[in-house]
Amino acid sequence: MATGLNPSEKTFRRAETRTWLRILGLHGRIFSALNRSLNATLGLSLAKFDVLAQLDQHPEGITLGLLSERLQVTGGNVSGLVQRLLADDLIVKQMSETDRRSFLVRLSPKGERVFREACEIHRAKLEELFAKVPDEELDDAFAILTSIGRHVQEGLNG
Amino acid sequence: MATGLNPSEKTFRRAETRTWLRILGLHGRIFSALNRSLNATLGLSLAKFDVLAQLDQHPEGITLGLLSERLQVTGGNVSGLVQRLLADDLIVKQMSETDRRSFLVRLSPKGERVFREACEIHRAKLEELFAKVPDEELDDAFAILTSIGRHVQEGLNG
Repeated sequence: MATGLNPSEKTFRRAETRTWLRILGLHGRIFSALNRSLNATLGLSLAKFDVLAQLDQHPEGITLGLLSERLQVTGGNVSGLVQRLLADDLIVKQMSETDRRSFLVRLSPKGERVFREACEIHRAKLEELFAKVPDEELDDAFAILTSIGRHVQEGLNG
Repeated sequence: MATGLNPSEKTFRRAETRTWLRILGLHGRIFSALNRSLNATLGLSLAKFDVLAQLDQHPEGITLGLLSERLQVTGGNVSGLVQRLLADDLIVKQMSETDRRSFLVRLSPKGERVFREACEIHRAKLEELFAKVPDEELDDAFAILTSIGRHVQEGLNG
């Protein structure tokens, strides 16, 4: 190219992109480690764990639509995950009492047990991953990511 | 439960978990926005874009094994992505000259063009998403995420 820079070098030098690449890299590394750990111990993917965590917050049950929204995944992905969790007896599906056209999903007793075990594994793995990160750095990261998240949301809202 | 806290409350109060949830939330929000934007303009998913970005860094070609490693996705996912990118004529596959048992993939001329366009869209969208984030905050986030990434990697290496 005329500038002597390839497109990625030009792109990657920008502050937004280099910060995004750090978020992407850290997310990927931690996501993979948690996923491997949950799979190895409980045969549970992190995607399934995330569904169980949402259902744990809604003991009264939640519609698939709201679940998709909470998980920020497409409807298709949620349907597949829900089918597999039903097959594993980790969740139950029931008709909504207020709207007979829609279904609610919630944790089964087995799902509650597995989720509690998974939480322990998840927590222990995160502690291990972050073991060498000083407390202050972890708190600073929380504060700055909270602020950036708020600013990005403002940008998304227009 | 005897403690009067549900598992997520107990888990989510820990510094590691709340920082991880922020990374997860910010990643999800930005990932979805970039994915929507690339899909709407070029019919390119962010997953495909990430493959093209890796190939852009390896004009001489790269094996599927190394590509999987770079993308931190499983071999199965990479195979599917590569098949779809071959079908779109965005990449080409050739036998390795040094090892006749392995294949290399690299960008096609069309792939190079599409990748350059995608970089512009990607960059513009990130600028838009981060528009309300002060420069200093963006730089501080980059520094702290770089440091945490290094510490997490040390943890992974033992």
